[in-house]
Formats: sequence, C-alpha cells, structure tokens
Amino acid sequence: MDDLPPILIPRQKRPRKASRTPNPEVRRRLLEAASKLILETGMPGLRVEDVAREAELSVGTFYIYFDGKEDLFATLVVEYTARMRELMQAVFNGPGTLEQRFARGLDTYITFVEENEAGFLYFRDAGTIRTQAGQLSAWVMSQHAQDLRPLLEEGIAAGIYRDENPELLAQSLLGMIQHMVGWWLEHRDECSREEIQRFVLMMTGRGLLR
Amino acid sequence: MDDLPPILIPRQKRPRKASRTPNPEVRRRLLEAASKLILETGMPGLRVEDVAREAELSVGTFYIYFDGKEDLFATLVVEYTARMRELMQAVFNGPGTLEQRFARGLDTYITFVEENEAGFLYFRDAGTIRTQAGQLSAWVMSQHAQDLRPLLEEGIAAGIYRDENPELLAQSLLGMIQHMVGWWLEHRDECSREEIQRFVLMMTGRGLLR
Repeated sequence: MDDLPPILIPRQKRPRKASRTPNPEVRRRLLEAASKLILETGMPGLRVEDVAREAELSVGTFYIYFDGKEDLFATLVVEYTARMRELMQAVFNGPGTLEQRFARGLDTYITFVEENEAGFLYFRDAGTIRTQAGQLSAWVMSQHAQDLRPLLEEGIAAGIYRDENPELLAQSLLGMIQHMVGWWLEHRDECSREEIQRFVLMMTGRGLLR
Repeated sequence: MDDLPPILIPRQKRPRKASRTPNPEVRRRLLEAASKLILETGMPGLRVEDVAREAELSVGTFYIYFDGKEDLFATLVVEYTARMRELMQAVFNGPGTLEQRFARGLDTYITFVEENEAGFLYFRDAGTIRTQAGQLSAWVMSQHAQDLRPLLEEGIAAGIYRDENPELLAQSLLGMIQHMVGWWLEHRDECSREEIQRFVLMMTGRGLLR
C-alpha cells in the first residue's frame, strides 16, 4: 500500500472532465502558478480562481487537469517528495562512512527545507488530505522511510546501529527530524541552523540519557 | 506567545454575532455534538449544519457561539489539550524516579490517544488552522513542552539527562512520540502497544547508536 501513488479520493461530486487532449505543458503551467502563489500567500487562502489567473488559463481548463485544490496540492507534494528522494538517495548511496552519510542526509534535508520553506509548510499542513494511499503526510513519510531503511539495515548489519525493526527506526528518526526542522523554521531567532543540526544528530544518535 | 490561548484569527468576513446572553450549557451541547460526529465521521466531512442538527439547535445559534467549523475545532483541541495536560502533570509531579515518571507519562499519553483516537487524529490533521498563537498544532506541542520541561530540568540537574536546551529536548521527544503513536494507530496489526511503547522509550532514551 505504501507504494501506491497517492491518487486523491475525490470528495467533490463533480466528475473530472475527461481530457481528450491532455497537454503536459498546460499541466506544468498550473503547477508552477500554484507553487508561486503558495510561496507568496501560503496554502490556506489559495483559490482555484487565483491559480488559473496566474497561469493565464480559465477555471474550466484547471478542472480538466485537476479535481480541485486538494488534488493540485497532492500533485505538488508528490513532486516535491520525488525531488527530495532523489537528493537523499544520492547521499545515502554515495561515498563515506555511515556516520558521514547520515549527517550529510540531515544536512541535505535541512537545505532542501530552507530552499522550499513554503513547500515544506504546505506539506506539513496538508494533513487532512486523504488519498487512495491513505493520509498524504503519512504517505510522504513512508516514501522517505523507504530510502532511509537500507542505510539503517547496513548499520544494523555492521553492528553500529541497534538491532531494531528498521521501519520503526526510520519512522522515529523521520518523525523527530521533521518536527524539529519545522519547529526551527519558526524559532530561527532562538536557534541557529548549526545548533539544530548538531542537536538532532545528537538526539537521534544518542538519546536523552547520559 | 506560547502562553496565549489560541484565539482563532477569523478568516471569514462575517463578524460573530455578539451574544448578549451567552449560555455555557448551549456551548457545551454544540461541543459535545461535534465530538460525537467527529468520532463517527471524522473531521473533514463535517458540516456546521450537521453539528447544529445533532445538538438540536439552529445554525444561527451555532454562529452565536462559534465563528465557524475551524473555531469549533480549535476550541475542542484546546479542551483536549487541557485534559491531557492535567493527566500528564499528575504523573510528572507524582511519586517515582525520573525513569518511572517518564515511562508512566508515555503510558498515560498512549492510553489517552487510544481512548480519544478520533480526537487525536483531528488534532493531528488540524495543521492548517491558524490562531493568534500561531499554528494550532504547534501551540499544542508548546503546551505539552511546558509540562515536560520541568521533568527534563530535574534530570539535567541530577546528571541523568544530557545538559542540552530543555526546550529542544522537550520538542524533540514530543515530536518523535507523537509521530510514532500516530504511525502505530495505523499499523496496529504489525506492532503491538507493548512493542511501540518499549521502542519509543528505548529510542528517546538511548538513540540509534549502539
């Protein structure tokens, strides 16, 4: 189930118009317009009308490509997730010791979040979006867990990491890291990037107890 | 800012009708009707009309007490948070060693989530609700962090816990715990309550590295 693409369970009664001539370029324009508007105004206030206007297309055209605002958001989250997975896989499968690759993965993640802050926040806030693959946010975590798991399995086999269920390990690390990076975005005046990065590496690695 | 009650920033243009005769009993009926419906059907599909009908009140009466669906949800989340804080404070300030109180706190939290699963899920999914105290979900975490911090400070002073920023420690523990309990709710066939509880205690305490 975790491998299903997150096709949105449509909540609207309106059936999507069948597109006889789907045009990837038009779809791309709508996605880019939405990305731009989310950067400017955030997700909650965004309306389909605004996206269509920004893309210089009609609302009718919008509904040929997307079922609605949630379908558009789900598509953007899927695209961001794919982009981040590429980066993480390059780090995890790249050179270096386990410790170096883990630390570099965290660094890459924080950089990605910094560069796509609005994208990260709308993903985090997209909790209520249900897809055929379940809750959208849970699907994203399971995608990232798939990339982290081989690194963890390597560390368990090498006797460096605890011999625990790799899925539980991956989920717990990702849960803590995502929460802390989200917290840090809103507390940057109190906590530098270096500090949060050092702290997260310490906590994920060694835990609370001295 | 973390101490402000999460008063909802109204997104509607409609100003709330001034209630000349606010009736706590009517407010209570609306909240209980909403709780019941959320248990049955979840938050996303819920309509103000349904809540009013369940409470045997008019939609007009609803809007005397709440600005809308989001205001009602925010109120419910505030109530659940207060109830959970009472339980956690009793545990943290109760008898036992630090280790026992930490473990008992986790046990109390998981029991509360199990008993209020729909409440937990609508809280988790209420990410997009913005209040004057910021994102509702971030406000809830900061409330729980306030209760956990004294326990952590006690442990730091006793040399048992790492001498790190207590707010970072509290946030990282809460972030991991909340994510893992949410993950577990949707994977109970793969992972028993005992297993998740043991795992979370181990990870928060000792981390990934052997």
